[in-house]
Amino acid sequence: MKINQIMNEIDIQQADAAWITTPLNIFYFTGYLSEPHERLLALLVTAQGEQVLFCPQLEVDEVKASPFEGTVIGYLDTESPYSKYSFSAQKLLVEAEHLTLKRQRELIQAFGVETFGDIDLTIKALRNVKTSDEIAKIQEACKLADKCIEIGVDFLSVGVTERQVVNHIENEIKKYGVNEMSFDTMVLFGDHAASPHGTPGERQLQNDEYVLFDLGVIYENYCSDMTRTVKFGTPSEDAQKIYNIVLKAETEAIAAIKPGVKIKEIDNIARGIIEDAGYGEYFPHRLGHGLGLEEHEYQDVSSSNDNTFEAGMVVTVEPGIYVPGVAGVRIEDDILVTDEGTTILTGYEK
Amino acid sequence: MKINQIMNEIDIQQADAAWITTPLNIFYFTGYLSEPHERLLALLVTAQGEQVLFCPQLEVDEVKASPFEGTVIGYLDTESPYSKYSFSAQKLLVEAEHLTLKRQRELIQAFGVETFGDIDLTIKALRNVKTSDEIAKIQEACKLADKCIEIGVDFLSVGVTERQVVNHIENEIKKYGVNEMSFDTMVLFGDHAASPHGTPGERQLQNDEYVLFDLGVIYENYCSDMTRTVKFGTPSEDAQKIYNIVLKAETEAIAAIKPGVKIKEIDNIARGIIEDAGYGEYFPHRLGHGLGLEEHEYQDVSSSNDNTFEAGMVVTVEPGIYVPGVAGVRIEDDILVTDEGTTILTGYEK
Repeated sequence: MKINQIMNEIDIQQADAAWITTPLNIFYFTGYLSEPHERLLALLVTAQGEQVLFCPQLEVDEVKASPFEGTVIGYLDTESPYSKYSFSAQKLLVEAEHLTLKRQRELIQAFGVETFGDIDLTIKALRNVKTSDEIAKIQEACKLADKCIEIGVDFLSVGVTERQVVNHIENEIKKYGVNEMSFDTMVLFGDHAASPHGTPGERQLQNDEYVLFDLGVIYENYCSDMTRTVKFGTPSEDAQKIYNIVLKAETEAIAAIKPGVKIKEIDNIARGIIEDAGYGEYFPHRLGHGLGLEEHEYQDVSSSNDNTFEAGMVVTVEPGIYVPGVAGVRIEDDILVTDEGTTILTGYEK
Repeated sequence: MKINQIMNEIDIQQADAAWITTPLNIFYFTGYLSEPHERLLALLVTAQGEQVLFCPQLEVDEVKASPFEGTVIGYLDTESPYSKYSFSAQKLLVEAEHLTLKRQRELIQAFGVETFGDIDLTIKALRNVKTSDEIAKIQEACKLADKCIEIGVDFLSVGVTERQVVNHIENEIKKYGVNEMSFDTMVLFGDHAASPHGTPGERQLQNDEYVLFDLGVIYENYCSDMTRTVKFGTPSEDAQKIYNIVLKAETEAIAAIKPGVKIKEIDNIARGIIEDAGYGEYFPHRLGHGLGLEEHEYQDVSSSNDNTFEAGMVVTVEPGIYVPGVAGVRIEDDILVTDEGTTILTGYEK
């Protein structure tokens, strides 16, 4: 039981309760997903395992229809949420990466909290290792991302704009039941892709360019995130050379992933290949990141991460080389770590 | 100059600088928009008016191409952003509604901050009164929202699902240059609309129902947000009665808006009409909210807001009555407060 890990951490830190406010973390524990905007949405978990969800009154019926089985406290816009439930805690565990100074003041005021501890890493560690149900959803999101690339590639023609390709992909994929992309779809042509965070615009496709697709979909709240850099005609030899280096870096990094291997070693493998080829300065980002309810989540696949891979983790591997005026190439797959090594969840050819 | 207001507040609170981290607030002051996810994006404004933008190294070129004219400090994922710029402050103004406990700890560590003050309300008050440039963008966003309703209404036919209407609107409006809706488009049929935060699904349209559309688009970063509840055939007399009460509440509330009027009085007018008609318990939310870079922003149009309207404010007015099993009706317009009274920016018939 996920909630037992929270109770365990409350015990270890000698706290009275935990206060969880990140919407996706609340979903993770309760099965109820909502974006409260400026309103308060919070899950209180006590040392005894009692669970209380604070939500706008408007949402109470939806919470009751969700898998959540704890106490629901609804409040009107004209009421203080805290006034609706009697509770006090000397020490409270909170998400230091999500709780704002304003909310902290409210907790001190409302519940008489004297000291705060962090619950962030406990939740990240839980979410880091996916259940089979979560893996199945990510796998489906990855298949749909493959389909997006296929739709995009089929749509390429001389003169089409980046923005037109983005719109076409996002329209067509709805026919497969996708209502939301996991982030703004990126389609960049030729050297425009040398800006790794560039924005698709009115640039028109010419013959003999690479086309970079970076996209993902959300399937039952789980994300995919993949990149392909696809030839349209025959790109320059310099560009093709860059492509082959990135592909080698990506393939060899993935091949080395298995439980027990240090995460930073995988970044080092890819980075080493790119550096040895003389392009080190053109690979300015980490190799990858965790993937699940968020397109970017714990943990970093970077040169400074001393943790090791565990079965059940899902990460991206996405080396890139961006040479202004020449080409921008990135290749990214979503990787499930298994007992034996890995399963690559994204399948479009590369 | 917007930044002078920040310097003024630094002076009033006897602080050394302000640290702004909300992406839209950074955009408001710099013209540079970015969603940094877990990475740090921050604008430092010193008492002397120096402006320093901290951003991921990947974004430095885009910042330099933006209207921002201050110092840009880029950092790699492997570096601490704070280590790239030498600065210290005894008292720092921060956004208490955005700064997390973790970021606060980093500021204490990096800049030796001893005390914190709030800059939130200063920024909200600035953003609350729109410039003519902002108003023009919101106006365009409103026209596009009108077009969305028109597209949706034209698409209605017996048997179509809510989800199909949503997809149709979102696809078609792209032809008008809209790349993003300001929130998830809501289309709800008949009594399904009695859940004011319901989700469009597989419910099929029948004859003689109301159809509730709640939607908005983003035009050059500015939002619209409008609701129409439209007859399909002849809804029941009970439902039509509810419609007419909501329309009266909305119309009379809007008519009373002008500079100097207390915001809560407008909520009271609409709420009074609905209560007098015997539906008070079925109107469980505030009357409206500010609108601009965000679909919901400062200030609340609610019964507890003692502030007064000022020329240049843009707010929504959106009373609703939701009677389970009967009907859900909401009507929402976007209202610009002018020296003379108001201009209604949304125009679709009601």
